[in-house]
Amino acid sequence: MNKVYVVGIGPGGAEYLTEEARAAMERAEVLVGYTVYIKLVSPLFPEKETYTTPMKQEVDRCRWALETAQDGRTVALVCSGDAGVYGMAGLVLELAEGYPQVDVEIVAGVTAALSGAAVLGAPLGHDFCVISLSDLLTPWEQIETRLRCAAEGDFAVCIYNPCSKKRVDTLQRACEILLEKKSPDTVCGWVKNIGREGQESRIVTLAQLPHEPLDMFTTVFVGAESTRICTGRMVTPRGYRKK
Amino acid sequence: MNKVYVVGIGPGGAEYLTEEARAAMERAEVLVGYTVYIKLVSPLFPEKETYTTPMKQEVDRCRWALETAQDGRTVALVCSGDAGVYGMAGLVLELAEGYPQVDVEIVAGVTAALSGAAVLGAPLGHDFCVISLSDLLTPWEQIETRLRCAAEGDFAVCIYNPCSKKRVDTLQRACEILLEKKSPDTVCGWVKNIGREGQESRIVTLAQLPHEPLDMFTTVFVGAESTRICTGRMVTPRGYRKK
Repeated sequence: MNKVYVVGIGPGGAEYLTEEARAAMERAEVLVGYTVYIKLVSPLFPEKETYTTPMKQEVDRCRWALETAQDGRTVALVCSGDAGVYGMAGLVLELAEGYPQVDVEIVAGVTAALSGAAVLGAPLGHDFCVISLSDLLTPWEQIETRLRCAAEGDFAVCIYNPCSKKRVDTLQRACEILLEKKSPDTVCGWVKNIGREGQESRIVTLAQLPHEPLDMFTTVFVGAESTRICTGRMVTPRGYRKK
Repeated sequence: MNKVYVVGIGPGGAEYLTEEARAAMERAEVLVGYTVYIKLVSPLFPEKETYTTPMKQEVDRCRWALETAQDGRTVALVCSGDAGVYGMAGLVLELAEGYPQVDVEIVAGVTAALSGAAVLGAPLGHDFCVISLSDLLTPWEQIETRLRCAAEGDFAVCIYNPCSKKRVDTLQRACEILLEKKSPDTVCGWVKNIGREGQESRIVTLAQLPHEPLDMFTTVFVGAESTRICTGRMVTPRGYRKK
């Protein structure tokens, strides 16, 4: 069988895997992925062959998976969180046009917007946006436009890749844009190393957010106007209590 | 222990449960939820006591869970998809202010935006919005504003509750708003009964979308400008190939 599973493994270890994700990796003859993610799942399949590639080698990694499947082996390409949300699913499907015999199956997983939200409470309980601040593949102007529209629509916003070693001020710039429409008292929160060793989280205001000690392993949540703190957690109500 | 787990079970049966969700239900003495969702998980725990309530009894259901936990029993409140995304997590946390001894733990799950996306391909591979068209708890004007902002920001959009028996024209109205900014050729898709019996899906254009035979069990995906069809699937590229 010529098959590539693109598998979302959730935020951390085995606890967050779906049964479907586990079964797909079980069926695969080889697990492919970024070194860190392979390390998270390989203890579950100690006998399984693995092939790891460093970050920023996404195209090579996906091509390797497709070529290996074309040669007749079943491959599971492992993604952190969900397979599709800033994951490899899209890229594999784009490249798959060159490998017509290979069947690609996408296996969803719990993305950081959901796993991080659960740590903080229920910040995404009503309509929300997910925006990455990484300008590696997206022009910064487009990111700014999306932040502006998210604020204009009073969405709760989940921010991926708030900063990196090279991008030290992107979260600051994002907060300035959100503050054009959102109150400085807007309830915000962040979660670092979700579901992994060293998990940390905090609820702050939008005014405080840019001064928090965040890194590239942090997911940030900015509330809507209705978002508030209930029993110490961040909650965006859906409105049941008002009925 | 006075504990309520609010558990997202994913789209359907056991296949989509995370290990964490299964363990939380295992630890609970009683499973509470909307009748349909309890039916999906109770075969996994045939010995477990269950308490089901009909739709629209959300406040009663959450209060029952908190009261039962206050009386000393461990409760798992079961939600379809994720516990937080249009789920019960927020409401439980709001009501928990009246039950200070009860500890509430939120267990994330695969929401329809992710499980539906995996069926279609990778429609949410870049920044996206999630919007519910249900005006039961949200004024329609706010829904319109959010649709407008989502289109203005060129987000991919995932639409929950596109219509119901009573709301026959909401998707039509939503499409009209999206068409103010988005091209009628925008790649769209829908998935019905995700992960359940009778799963169906189709990729269409934004112009065709309002004429599709959708229902309240359908999740709809509207592409961004960059969204296209690759090997028959709906893909919103992140941009790796352009690098």
